[in-house]
Amino acid sequence: MQNQKQYFPMHTSSPLAEILRQRRQKLATLIDFPAVLWSGGSSPRNFPANTFPFRPSSHFLYFAGLPLKNAAIRLDGGKLQLFMDNPPPEDALWHGETPTCEEIAEKIGADDARPMAELEDYLENAATLPVQDAATWTQQTQFLNRWILPQNPPDGIDLELAKAIVSLRLTHDAGALAELRQAAAVSVQAHKAGMAATLTAKLEAEVRAAMEGVIIAHNMTTAYSSIVTVHGEVLHNGHYHHRLQPGDLLLADVGAETGTGWAADITRTWPVFGKFSPTQKDVYDIVLAAHDACIQEIAPGVEYSEIHLLAATILTKGLIELGILRGDVEKLVKIDAHSLFFPHGIGHLLGLDVHDMEDLGDLAGYEEGRNRSQRFGLSYLRLNRPLQPGMLVTIEPGFYQVPGIINNPKIRSQYQYSVNWERLEQFADVRGIRIEDDVLVTESGSEVLTAALPTSSQEIEALVNS
Amino acid sequence: MQNQKQYFPMHTSSPLAEILRQRRQKLATLIDFPAVLWSGGSSPRNFPANTFPFRPSSHFLYFAGLPLKNAAIRLDGGKLQLFMDNPPPEDALWHGETPTCEEIAEKIGADDARPMAELEDYLENAATLPVQDAATWTQQTQFLNRWILPQNPPDGIDLELAKAIVSLRLTHDAGALAELRQAAAVSVQAHKAGMAATLTAKLEAEVRAAMEGVIIAHNMTTAYSSIVTVHGEVLHNGHYHHRLQPGDLLLADVGAETGTGWAADITRTWPVFGKFSPTQKDVYDIVLAAHDACIQEIAPGVEYSEIHLLAATILTKGLIELGILRGDVEKLVKIDAHSLFFPHGIGHLLGLDVHDMEDLGDLAGYEEGRNRSQRFGLSYLRLNRPLQPGMLVTIEPGFYQVPGIINNPKIRSQYQYSVNWERLEQFADVRGIRIEDDVLVTESGSEVLTAALPTSSQEIEALVNS
Ligand SMILES: [Mn+2]
Ligand SMILES: [Mn+2]
Repeated sequence: MQNQKQYFPMHTSSPLAEILRQRRQKLATLIDFPAVLWSGGSSPRNFPANTFPFRPSSHFLYFAGLPLKNAAIRLDGGKLQLFMDNPPPEDALWHGETPTCEEIAEKIGADDARPMAELEDYLENAATLPVQDAATWTQQTQFLNRWILPQNPPDGIDLELAKAIVSLRLTHDAGALAELRQAAAVSVQAHKAGMAATLTAKLEAEVRAAMEGVIIAHNMTTAYSSIVTVHGEVLHNGHYHHRLQPGDLLLADVGAETGTGWAADITRTWPVFGKFSPTQKDVYDIVLAAHDACIQEIAPGVEYSEIHLLAATILTKGLIELGILRGDVEKLVKIDAHSLFFPHGIGHLLGLDVHDMEDLGDLAGYEEGRNRSQRFGLSYLRLNRPLQPGMLVTIEPGFYQVPGIINNPKIRSQYQYSVNWERLEQFADVRGIRIEDDVLVTESGSEVLTAALPTSSQEIEALVNS
Repeated sequence: MQNQKQYFPMHTSSPLAEILRQRRQKLATLIDFPAVLWSGGSSPRNFPANTFPFRPSSHFLYFAGLPLKNAAIRLDGGKLQLFMDNPPPEDALWHGETPTCEEIAEKIGADDARPMAELEDYLENAATLPVQDAATWTQQTQFLNRWILPQNPPDGIDLELAKAIVSLRLTHDAGALAELRQAAAVSVQAHKAGMAATLTAKLEAEVRAAMEGVIIAHNMTTAYSSIVTVHGEVLHNGHYHHRLQPGDLLLADVGAETGTGWAADITRTWPVFGKFSPTQKDVYDIVLAAHDACIQEIAPGVEYSEIHLLAATILTKGLIELGILRGDVEKLVKIDAHSLFFPHGIGHLLGLDVHDMEDLGDLAGYEEGRNRSQRFGLSYLRLNRPLQPGMLVTIEPGFYQVPGIINNPKIRSQYQYSVNWERLEQFADVRGIRIEDDVLVTESGSEVLTAALPTSSQEIEALVNS
């Protein structure tokens, strides 16, 4: 994983500059044309001067290392050029003294620094990837004189660049891992704070506040919109207004992002009054068994889709033992019976994006030549590749009673013999459970970056009651 | 301020529906063409599926009352039509059951509800205002077949609509005030929590976390990017990484926004170790005197620019008494000597936007026929109108030692006789102070919506030490 030059630097430079130098040298071995990456600008919220917090393009961050606004870099044969305007002098009145373009260039090891206006002279045969904000993709489109739109899949040399970047970003170097470990550590603390705040909280929002408070206090941001809900069965839940009621399970999917953009993604589920009911504990332990078995299986060369099927098998087996599913494990998995209760993939890539490189569609998630399955139980799988050392993936099995699935008459009749619907009713207090950790593929197997956060029901209960 | 019909509703309807009915009936008396307002969509963060929290257009919120995504309303002669698509059935799998278009129409008192595709049939002669997100202003541009861009000032009937909306939104009805009071109350709590967290905090970020935690716990959002800094002299400070050092003042400009978009905007400045130094207290008391005098002066008919000049006068007088400025108060104000230390306006309109209706440029802030002054001391004034009952304004005097101003050789020579630069050096520990409250103009004078948060240096110290 390590480039030898890390240990024999050719000239003294900052650790960041050295990390970035290695990344672009690898890129130079993969493409023989220049790449120009824009950082992007702030997106307006309710009026132009009131913007959302600035988040640079992840591809830019990977090669530029710093969250620079309205900047661009040009990568060519291992060289790095920074294009960025120094703020006008009157800006110092409002924003204070900021580092000059030249100082930033020095810090990131750029070979030169030029104003944005000169970028147009350096675009011949250059490939790029679209940023997300409209003002910048408009500029990309104008400067390159071809449509560069976030919704358009890359094409031509842009596609070649995308593939090259995917092959780099798929596995994490030491610089990335140092950041990812920080994001994981702060996210672990956030979850512990959320558990500790639950007994006295009245609303989901109060638990969310305790969790995001830890992230903000570490001068980080959330990597995605937090899910903190007693309705875990609503998978994309962006509401926090429910009261915590006796018998509720709280599902919290919250992750931090470091200042240079590296993410964590953790889910835990805990009883709001500090004790799982017997039915909740039964299902929780099945989800945990799937979680543990999947992590156990992670190793170089293993197909991630096999990990997904392993989770399906263990969940199915557990649900048969509880009397919720009926029949043979393998046959039930084949007809996607597990998907009634686990209607998403076992996980995804994690890096600068919480679904890493999902801006490129399935280019990163799917091995070349593979496509999404049409099967309900597999179509949501975001990652379908053999694992390699340095990949970071999430493992996030779950059990959900999604009303739109289990109350669907067509589904109920299709699975009338596979599901014991009466028995299922006894598990009405188990609406949604997910256990998610961030797992690094290592040479010898795996390392759970989020292992400091317990998973067992007893330890979770202890943290809630702490 | 109150429309009599509030007390004699013509048909039973929800309180929200009644508020909205009154707003559009007022609008109908001002324009004789239909208005179509889009809510907007989510803006992507680092990839399309990872969006910033959705914030609808404020003009839409004013007349639709609910934060609906990808919706539009048509207002015509007091009638309200809602255009919105019901989510496809498979959406319920991921987002849970959401209210139907028809249920929402009922709640907001719409006369009918139609799918978005039908909106194109209802656009004849319709005026609109641009939303902020690119996907939606692109749709506005296509549907209306003319450029609708956030950066373009409105024109023709769009300008007429903008002026009509400004005249409504300039003063707040009872429905708006109920929300604004909630935002103010939660913001007051946030500031108290920030003060109480400071003695044990090591970083600015930790105080920010305590403050935003209160806002998140109330299921609200911040109305703008919080400023929580020991470098208050950097007016637009978006950093939170500084350590809190003995002798520092912490300036916190943090405000909450309710679920339907109504904002608060509060600034306080407190000593991080719980005690103002004598120099800090001297300057703090001058800023507070300006703050109090300005609020005292607020009443219907008073020119807001006079309030600004009152602040300038009191600050100047105080700085003369401290020996920092030299000369005659009136003359110093005329040459903008106060602006060296108070280089911004005394405040702005507050409502659905923290700088209310600033998306329309100065259309709301400046009385028709008035323009921004060229004078340094006045050019930053965002509001220049006679005050009317129901207007909500901020009052936010400050004192800052902005390096870019006070170290500027041209300025130092221009003001060489007006400023005692040696004396100023004795106030080196007073880098930035601001005291900001939200003040409602009433029939008889004013009401401070944020009055529950103390301003005196003793009470502030007590809260920090609590
Ligand atoms: Mn995940
Ligand atoms: Mn303000």
